[in-house]
Amino acid sequence: MFIAMNRFKVLPGQEAAFEEIWLSRDTHLKGVPGFQSFHLLRGPKTDDHALYSSHSVWDSRAAFEAWTKSEAFRLAHRDAGSAKPIYAGHPNFEGFEVIQAVTA
Amino acid sequence: MFIAMNRFKVLPGQEAAFEEIWLSRDTHLKGVPGFQSFHLLRGPKTDDHALYSSHSVWDSRAAFEAWTKSEAFRLAHRDAGSAKPIYAGHPNFEGFEVIQAVTA
Repeated sequence: MFIAMNRFKVLPGQEAAFEEIWLSRDTHLKGVPGFQSFHLLRGPKTDDHALYSSHSVWDSRAAFEAWTKSEAFRLAHRDAGSAKPIYAGHPNFEGFEVIQAVTA
Repeated sequence: MFIAMNRFKVLPGQEAAFEEIWLSRDTHLKGVPGFQSFHLLRGPKTDDHALYSSHSVWDSRAAFEAWTKSEAFRLAHRDAGSAKPIYAGHPNFEGFEVIQAVTA
Protein backbone atom coordinates (compact mmCIF):
# COMPACT_ATOMS: atom_id res chain seq x y z
CA MET A 1 0.00 0.00 0.00
CA PHE A 2 1.28 3.43 -0.97
CA ILE A 3 0.04 6.91 -0.01
CA ALA A 4 0.77 9.87 -2.29
CA MET A 5 0.33 13.35 -0.81
CA ASN A 6 0.84 16.72 -2.40
CA ARG A 7 0.96 19.64 0.04
CA PHE A 8 -0.33 23.07 -1.02
CA LYS A 9 0.19 26.31 0.86
CA VAL A 10 -2.69 28.61 -0.02
CA LEU A 11 -2.46 32.38 0.43
CA PRO A 12 -4.71 33.98 3.10
CA GLY A 13 -8.10 34.80 1.62
CA GLN A 14 -7.69 32.35 -1.30
CA GLU A 15 -9.06 29.29 0.51
CA ALA A 16 -12.48 29.44 -1.16
CA ALA A 17 -10.91 29.86 -4.62
CA PHE A 18 -8.64 26.87 -4.01
CA GLU A 19 -11.51 24.66 -2.83
CA GLU A 20 -13.70 25.72 -5.76
CA ILE A 21 -10.99 24.75 -8.28
CA TRP A 22 -10.46 21.34 -6.71
CA LEU A 23 -14.05 20.45 -5.93
CA SER A 24 -15.26 21.35 -9.43
CA ARG A 25 -12.70 19.38 -11.44
CA ASP A 26 -12.99 15.78 -12.69
CA THR A 27 -10.35 13.62 -11.00
CA HIS A 28 -10.41 10.95 -13.77
CA LEU A 29 -9.45 8.43 -11.08
CA LYS A 30 -12.33 5.94 -11.28
CA GLY A 31 -11.13 2.71 -12.88
CA VAL A 32 -7.42 3.57 -12.78
CA PRO A 33 -5.54 0.28 -12.06
CA GLY A 34 -4.32 0.07 -8.46
CA PHE A 35 -6.25 3.16 -7.33
CA GLN A 36 -8.00 2.80 -3.96
CA SER A 37 -9.13 6.23 -2.79
CA PHE A 38 -8.58 9.98 -3.08
CA HIS A 39 -9.23 12.60 -0.42
CA LEU A 40 -8.73 16.34 -0.47
CA LEU A 41 -7.66 17.50 2.98
CA ARG A 42 -7.85 20.86 4.75
CA GLY A 43 -5.01 21.20 7.26
CA PRO A 44 -3.85 23.78 9.79
CA LYS A 45 -3.78 27.50 9.03
CA THR A 46 -0.93 29.88 9.96
CA ASP A 47 -0.54 33.66 9.55
CA ASP A 48 0.85 33.37 6.02
CA HIS A 49 -0.92 30.32 4.56
CA ALA A 50 -3.52 27.59 4.91
CA LEU A 51 -2.20 24.06 4.40
CA TYR A 52 -4.14 21.73 2.12
CA SER A 53 -3.10 18.31 0.89
CA SER A 54 -4.27 15.87 -1.72
CA HIS A 55 -4.15 12.30 -0.39
CA SER A 56 -4.46 9.23 -2.57
CA VAL A 57 -4.10 5.57 -1.62
CA TRP A 58 -2.72 3.02 -4.09
CA ASP A 59 -2.01 -0.71 -4.14
CA SER A 60 1.69 0.07 -4.66
CA ARG A 61 4.16 2.79 -5.58
CA ALA A 62 4.35 1.17 -9.04
CA ALA A 63 0.59 1.62 -9.56
CA PHE A 64 0.88 5.30 -8.59
CA GLU A 65 3.83 5.88 -10.91
CA ALA A 66 2.05 4.18 -13.81
CA TRP A 67 -0.89 6.57 -13.30
CA THR A 68 1.41 9.62 -13.43
CA LYS A 69 2.43 8.54 -16.95
CA SER A 70 -1.15 7.89 -18.12
CA GLU A 71 -3.67 9.80 -20.22
CA ALA A 72 -5.99 9.92 -17.18
CA PHE A 73 -3.30 11.84 -15.27
CA ARG A 74 -2.80 14.27 -18.14
CA LEU A 75 -6.55 14.93 -18.32
CA ALA A 76 -6.81 15.49 -14.56
CA HIS A 77 -3.97 18.02 -14.58
CA ARG A 78 -4.50 19.89 -17.83
CA ASP A 79 -5.99 22.93 -16.08
CA ALA A 80 -3.45 23.03 -13.27
CA GLY A 81 -1.48 26.25 -13.19
CA SER A 82 -4.05 28.31 -15.08
CA ALA A 83 -5.54 29.84 -11.96
CA LYS A 84 -4.73 33.29 -10.62
CA PRO A 85 -2.05 33.38 -7.90
CA ILE A 86 -3.46 31.56 -4.91
CA TYR A 87 -0.38 29.64 -3.74
CA ALA A 88 2.50 30.54 -1.44
CA GLY A 89 5.24 28.62 -3.25
CA HIS A 90 5.22 25.36 -5.17
CA PRO A 91 3.36 22.24 -4.08
CA ASN A 92 5.47 19.72 -2.18
CA PHE A 93 5.01 16.06 -3.13
CA GLU A 94 5.69 13.27 -0.64
CA GLY A 95 5.19 9.55 -1.28
CA PHE A 96 4.82 7.16 1.67
CA GLU A 97 5.15 3.38 1.94
CA VAL A 98 2.84 1.82 4.54
CA ILE A 99 4.94 -0.21 7.00
CA GLN A 100 2.29 -0.97 9.64
CA ALA A 101 -1.52 -1.11 9.57
CA VAL A 102 -4.06 -1.31 12.42
CA THR A 103 -7.79 -1.28 11.73
CA ALA A 104 -10.73 -0.77 14.07
CA MET B 1 -13.81 12.14 8.54
CA PHE B 2 -10.57 13.41 10.10
CA ILE B 3 -6.94 12.42 9.45
CA ALA B 4 -4.32 12.96 12.15
CA MET B 5 -0.68 12.83 11.09
CA ASN B 6 2.45 13.24 13.16
CA ARG B 7 5.63 13.77 11.14
CA PHE B 8 8.97 12.46 12.47
CA LYS B 9 12.39 13.33 11.09
CA VAL B 10 14.69 10.42 11.90
CA LEU B 11 18.47 10.84 11.96
CA PRO B 12 20.50 9.00 9.29
CA GLY B 13 21.30 5.46 10.42
CA GLN B 14 18.49 5.42 13.03
CA GLU B 15 15.74 4.20 10.69
CA ALA B 16 15.86 0.59 11.93
CA ALA B 17 15.76 1.75 15.57
CA PHE B 18 12.76 3.97 14.87
CA GLU B 19 10.86 1.21 13.08
CA GLU B 20 11.67 -1.31 15.83
CA ILE B 21 10.26 1.02 18.52
CA TRP B 22 7.04 1.65 16.59
CA LEU B 23 6.44 -1.86 15.29
CA SER B 24 6.97 -3.47 18.69
CA ARG B 25 4.63 -1.25 20.71
CA ASP B 26 0.93 -1.80 21.47
CA THR B 27 -1.13 0.96 19.85
CA HIS B 28 -4.12 0.47 22.22
CA LEU B 29 -6.33 1.68 19.36
CA LYS B 30 -8.67 -1.29 18.90
CA GLY B 31 -12.13 -0.44 20.20
CA VAL B 32 -11.47 3.30 20.67
CA PRO B 33 -14.72 5.14 19.78
CA GLY B 34 -14.55 6.79 16.35
CA PHE B 35 -11.25 5.13 15.40
CA GLN B 36 -11.11 3.81 11.81
CA SER B 37 -7.51 2.96 10.96
CA PHE B 38 -3.87 3.59 11.80
CA HIS B 39 -0.90 3.38 9.45
CA LEU B 40 2.77 3.99 10.04
CA LEU B 41 4.31 5.52 6.92
CA ARG B 42 7.87 5.68 5.60
CA GLY B 43 8.37 8.82 3.51
CA PRO B 44 11.18 10.38 1.50
CA LYS B 45 14.77 10.48 2.72
CA THR B 46 17.10 13.48 2.46
CA ASP B 47 20.77 13.95 3.38
CA ASP B 48 19.99 14.86 6.98
CA HIS B 49 16.88 12.84 7.83
CA ALA B 50 14.32 10.21 6.83
CA LEU B 51 10.72 11.34 7.03
CA TYR B 52 8.22 9.06 8.75
CA SER B 53 4.62 9.81 9.64
CA SER B 54 1.94 8.24 11.74
CA HIS B 55 -1.43 8.39 9.99
CA SER B 56 -4.74 7.72 11.71
CA VAL B 57 -8.26 8.08 10.35
CA TRP B 58 -11.16 9.03 12.63
CA ASP B 59 -14.88 9.59 12.28
CA SER B 60 -14.36 13.23 13.34
CA ARG B 61 -11.91 15.65 14.91
CA ALA B 62 -13.95 15.35 18.12
CA ALA B 63 -13.38 11.56 18.23
CA PHE B 64 -9.64 12.10 17.77
CA GLU B 65 -9.48 14.75 20.50
CA ALA B 66 -11.45 12.57 22.92
CA TRP B 67 -8.88 9.81 22.36
CA THR B 68 -5.97 12.16 23.17
CA LYS B 69 -7.54 12.67 26.61
CA SER B 70 -8.14 8.96 27.25
CA GLU B 71 -6.38 6.27 29.27
CA ALA B 72 -5.77 4.37 25.99
CA PHE B 73 -3.77 7.35 24.69
CA ARG B 74 -1.74 7.55 27.90
CA LEU B 75 -0.92 3.83 27.69
CA ALA B 76 0.10 4.06 24.02
CA HIS B 77 2.48 6.96 24.72
CA ARG B 78 3.94 6.10 28.13
CA ASP B 79 7.26 4.94 26.61
CA ALA B 80 7.57 7.84 24.16
CA GLY B 81 10.69 9.90 24.75
CA SER B 82 12.59 7.16 26.57
CA ALA B 83 14.58 6.14 23.49
CA LYS B 84 18.11 7.20 22.69
CA PRO B 85 18.42 10.21 20.36
CA ILE B 86 17.06 9.14 17.01
CA TYR B 87 15.16 12.29 15.99
CA ALA B 88 16.19 15.46 14.18
CA GLY B 89 13.91 17.89 16.04
CA HIS B 90 10.46 17.51 17.53
CA PRO B 91 7.59 15.71 15.83
CA ASN B 92 5.22 17.95 13.89
CA PHE B 93 1.51 17.26 14.30
CA GLU B 94 -1.00 18.16 11.56
CA GLY B 95 -4.74 17.47 11.66
CA PHE B 96 -6.72 17.38 8.40
CA GLU B 97 -10.45 17.61 7.69
CA VAL B 98 -11.57 15.62 4.66
CA ILE B 99 -13.37 17.95 2.24
CA GLN B 100 -13.67 15.63 -0.80
CA ALA B 101 -13.62 11.84 -1.20
CA VAL B 102 -13.37 9.68 -4.35
CA THR B 103 -13.22 5.89 -4.11
CA ALA B 104 -12.30 3.27 -6.71
